[in-house]
Amino acid sequence: MTKRTRRSFIAKTSLLALGATTSAWATAPAKPKLMHHVFFWLKNPASKEDLAKLIEGVKSLEKIETIRQLHIGVPASTEKRPVVDNSYAVSELIFFDDVAGQNTYQDHPIHKKFVADYSPLWEKVIVYDSMDI
Amino acid sequence: MTKRTRRSFIAKTSLLALGATTSAWATAPAKPKLMHHVFFWLKNPASKEDLAKLIEGVKSLEKIETIRQLHIGVPASTEKRPVVDNSYAVSELIFFDDVAGQNTYQDHPIHKKFVADYSPLWEKVIVYDSMDI
Repeated sequence: MTKRTRRSFIAKTSLLALGATTSAWATAPAKPKLMHHVFFWLKNPASKEDLAKLIEGVKSLEKIETIRQLHIGVPASTEKRPVVDNSYAVSELIFFDDVAGQNTYQDHPIHKKFVADYSPLWEKVIVYDSMDI
Repeated sequence: MTKRTRRSFIAKTSLLALGATTSAWATAPAKPKLMHHVFFWLKNPASKEDLAKLIEGVKSLEKIETIRQLHIGVPASTEKRPVVDNSYAVSELIFFDDVAGQNTYQDHPIHKKFVADYSPLWEKVIVYDSMDI
């Protein structure tokens, strides 16, 4: 195999492996695949009261039936490194089965009430949605 | 109760609840508490080959003994909203028992080899470390 062919082979087999995983999951959902990572920055980062309120708000989401796991976090006391951004106040990590599960959550009255009631507390929110491979 | 007293009460009980959770876990670690969220942006975002290589690199980390769960992801096809940043190429989510578990990982030869071998592929990396509450 030439170098180019070998590299192409590696790329193709890797993509095939990804495809196989996706297909297997489509027919038999073994574990939640959609990870919804949310990081909140408070308008008043020094306010313990606002922090407690926002955590209470995020906890209210757990009643939404398509949530498989909900992890609420605060910045960990890990080593300060240039790539680490621990300036947020609260993290929310939700596992859904799939995109449809997250869509149900986005449109759910409990989620809409959460945004209406608690968004005045936050200055910024960043969301990353990942599909487990 | 006055409004001020009630708010203070709510804040204190919320903090007490947090404290209770932390103490219970300190004596009996029921589940991993440290969530290490990493998002990678590739120098060549259009390269499927670089994407496959980086995923292969992240997979090599799973041999590190303090890792309780490793989830490798790619951007999900969720709705495009202003708060969603799905411009990254690969997400890595690792659960450790605690900060010590992550420190072992950071200093581990497998992790050092991963950074040495694969960091030329990425342009940017952002890390968020959260403690589950």
